[in-house]
Amino acid sequence: MVEAASRTRDLHHLSAVDAAQAIREGRLSSETLVQACLDQIGDDPFKAWVYLNPDIALVQAREMDRIRKAGKATGALHGVPVALKDIIDTRFMPTERGSSIFADRKPEVDAYIVNRLREAGAVIMGKTKTTELAFVHPTDTTNPHDSTRSPGGSSSGSAAAVAAHHVPLAVGSQTGGSVIRPASYCGIYGFKPSRGIISRAGVLPTSETLDHLGTFARNLEDIALLTNVLSSYDPADESSFARPRPDLLTGARAQAPVEPDIAFFEFPFHDRLAADAREGLNAVIDALGPRVTRLPVSDSLSGLIEVHLTIHEYEFCQQMAETIDGHWEALSDSLKTVITRGRAITRDQYDDAQTVRATAEEFCAKHFNDFDAILAPSATGEAPLFASGETGDPVFCRIWSLTGLPALNIPLLVGENDLPIGVQLIGGSEEDDRLMRTAAWVQRALQDA
Amino acid sequence: MVEAASRTRDLHHLSAVDAAQAIREGRLSSETLVQACLDQIGDDPFKAWVYLNPDIALVQAREMDRIRKAGKATGALHGVPVALKDIIDTRFMPTERGSSIFADRKPEVDAYIVNRLREAGAVIMGKTKTTELAFVHPTDTTNPHDSTRSPGGSSSGSAAAVAAHHVPLAVGSQTGGSVIRPASYCGIYGFKPSRGIISRAGVLPTSETLDHLGTFARNLEDIALLTNVLSSYDPADESSFARPRPDLLTGARAQAPVEPDIAFFEFPFHDRLAADAREGLNAVIDALGPRVTRLPVSDSLSGLIEVHLTIHEYEFCQQMAETIDGHWEALSDSLKTVITRGRAITRDQYDDAQTVRATAEEFCAKHFNDFDAILAPSATGEAPLFASGETGDPVFCRIWSLTGLPALNIPLLVGENDLPIGVQLIGGSEEDDRLMRTAAWVQRALQDA
Repeated sequence: MVEAASRTRDLHHLSAVDAAQAIREGRLSSETLVQACLDQIGDDPFKAWVYLNPDIALVQAREMDRIRKAGKATGALHGVPVALKDIIDTRFMPTERGSSIFADRKPEVDAYIVNRLREAGAVIMGKTKTTELAFVHPTDTTNPHDSTRSPGGSSSGSAAAVAAHHVPLAVGSQTGGSVIRPASYCGIYGFKPSRGIISRAGVLPTSETLDHLGTFARNLEDIALLTNVLSSYDPADESSFARPRPDLLTGARAQAPVEPDIAFFEFPFHDRLAADAREGLNAVIDALGPRVTRLPVSDSLSGLIEVHLTIHEYEFCQQMAETIDGHWEALSDSLKTVITRGRAITRDQYDDAQTVRATAEEFCAKHFNDFDAILAPSATGEAPLFASGETGDPVFCRIWSLTGLPALNIPLLVGENDLPIGVQLIGGSEEDDRLMRTAAWVQRALQDA
Repeated sequence: MVEAASRTRDLHHLSAVDAAQAIREGRLSSETLVQACLDQIGDDPFKAWVYLNPDIALVQAREMDRIRKAGKATGALHGVPVALKDIIDTRFMPTERGSSIFADRKPEVDAYIVNRLREAGAVIMGKTKTTELAFVHPTDTTNPHDSTRSPGGSSSGSAAAVAAHHVPLAVGSQTGGSVIRPASYCGIYGFKPSRGIISRAGVLPTSETLDHLGTFARNLEDIALLTNVLSSYDPADESSFARPRPDLLTGARAQAPVEPDIAFFEFPFHDRLAADAREGLNAVIDALGPRVTRLPVSDSLSGLIEVHLTIHEYEFCQQMAETIDGHWEALSDSLKTVITRGRAITRDQYDDAQTVRATAEEFCAKHFNDFDAILAPSATGEAPLFASGETGDPVFCRIWSLTGLPALNIPLLVGENDLPIGVQLIGGSEEDDRLMRTAAWVQRALQDA
């Protein structure tokens, strides 16, 4: 595979799993791979990157090559370039959080996950564009499949960079639908793991109980590999748990002992689905046949979208109070609107929302006794037009961010404009490995169908 | 093996590798194993423990059993009890550092390695006795092989607890010879990995450039497994490096592609070796035959023991200044003597010592192009009498602490009083996996000899 890619100068198409293996075995140098990715980025036509210094990337690549040649230990991502959403602190690159308020901000400490990436031998390629403070106001990043379309947000640059073959891997974050939605629009894999598996220390906190880090790649094993590397207990993040973590790569490579059972809920907000997305989703459900069971939605869950919004906006205003108060004029109008709404939410309303959330978590959890995964749309349809000024509707992601369950976007469908539409699989809490195994089964089943 | 152990009520003899596997596979519960270890500890006849609360240990064990039964992820040390030298901070157990100055001290933050252990599913069994501030003044711990003898120091309790089958695994530390020497006296495996592989954050700093954490176990694979779990990049420790780490368990299980080459230096201080230790070492060298090459020692290295002592005592006085000044009367006479000597060392003398050290590192490093390991004594002979008031001579360990090279004690010999004597193997920097592979070969070669 490496030789073939090398012949066609298509090294930037290599998967992370294949690239890491080729580098470890000395068939490919990290420098060659990183240079190929830099060439592919060129002048960044989709405006995916906010910070990219080829020298800093190449210095890391050469160091990984030197380590390998010296016979020292190599890591799981040895010499493989990874992009980081620009809300993740890096000492050696600015971290601007998508806002002029933090222009040229230089963190003194790397985020915890940056340490994990370096321990795995990854090359930190650069920083990818995030919407303003990882919330509503879009970047100028365009969708690599159609420059008139949005890549989705808030992890706009991370998704676009992976879709455009700039890097095989990127890290993003999701509070509402900021990993799954852009992955769906960009036609790649996106994964938001179980709450507490990846530490958020050193990442801009926008909502203490909803923020998750997540991963982007172009295939399932790459998603599993990157998530494994990031997955580690860190008491600096209160949501991080002091327990063993699932091995996602083993999950992605496992054969399910029996065919999995998958649940599908027709939530009230399913009327927001575009016709092509609905048709595609139904085709997937039909192809999986009796493995999918349609289930009724509990009435108590009808208000979950509002519950998520209440918690997100309330916590955002609390956590960002200093930034908001100190820099009101520097905020976008769209963010000001959100903040004004968030500040009108009372503590009682917030507490009520957290109570409903607990019910929702319970409701969802019990289904994983009978089912291996829940099937759901990832987004309402194809990517929205860039001119809309919006990054798309995260409605289909909010419940899974709220309940902290692992959620995966699989790029399965094509819409009426030939643009990608993803399908979401949701797993049981801390059973991210089982979700990977189920996803691998679904992929094989649909190939055979 | 588990069944056999279970029949004979000898669960406390299980290796960590076997125990973890049995627990993961549901053939053994962590609670049963931890209870068996608690029973074996009994009333702690060797005075190995400074803090041991059966309830705290059992709560962790039951939690690990619950996680496994719930089908959640299990870790590399799932449900396996581990002892920690009492200079390693723990939030849920006091950390007294072997001194009344720190009586009932309750750290607010766990040491970094405690997080790694918890992520691996280990049960933190309790805290084992350390010499005063991990330096010269002995504990009341006795050698499990002979209660009139010292277990060695400073990791006295960790070595004794593993030797007495209280726990399969323990963590200690080495600045001079505090892992290798007690392992030799107690007849177990002890390992001081390459400098920078294990973070010392949250561990009492006694000598910034010499302190290492190390591991104790009763077989090679257990040493490798525990060291792998602890091995992780942590910028909070300046010696910790941001690179991939060797996989020691793979090393311990690997077959050397060709028979390894081993170097042996007759250092000037070899005249301190007891007759039985010298005889045993020569027998090992003879048995390994042409695989061992005797090499001359560079003259520039003759003063290395003094160089180590200078750096250790100078740094101890610098790092402990506040404790020393604030609590002089609470220090032992033997420590006061060391401090008085350390305070007489000038900055110039210290700088000179660091210069010689750099030469020594270079001298040692170049040998690992031609040799897989260096063979050396671990200690001067059998454990010293408890009544001597000393923990034994660390002379054979100082050079490897000074040069930061990985050093392993293998319990190969028996002295004239039927007490264990170890042999040391030293590897190239950050080639701890190769050292494990060489050690496994040496063991097999000596079995066959």
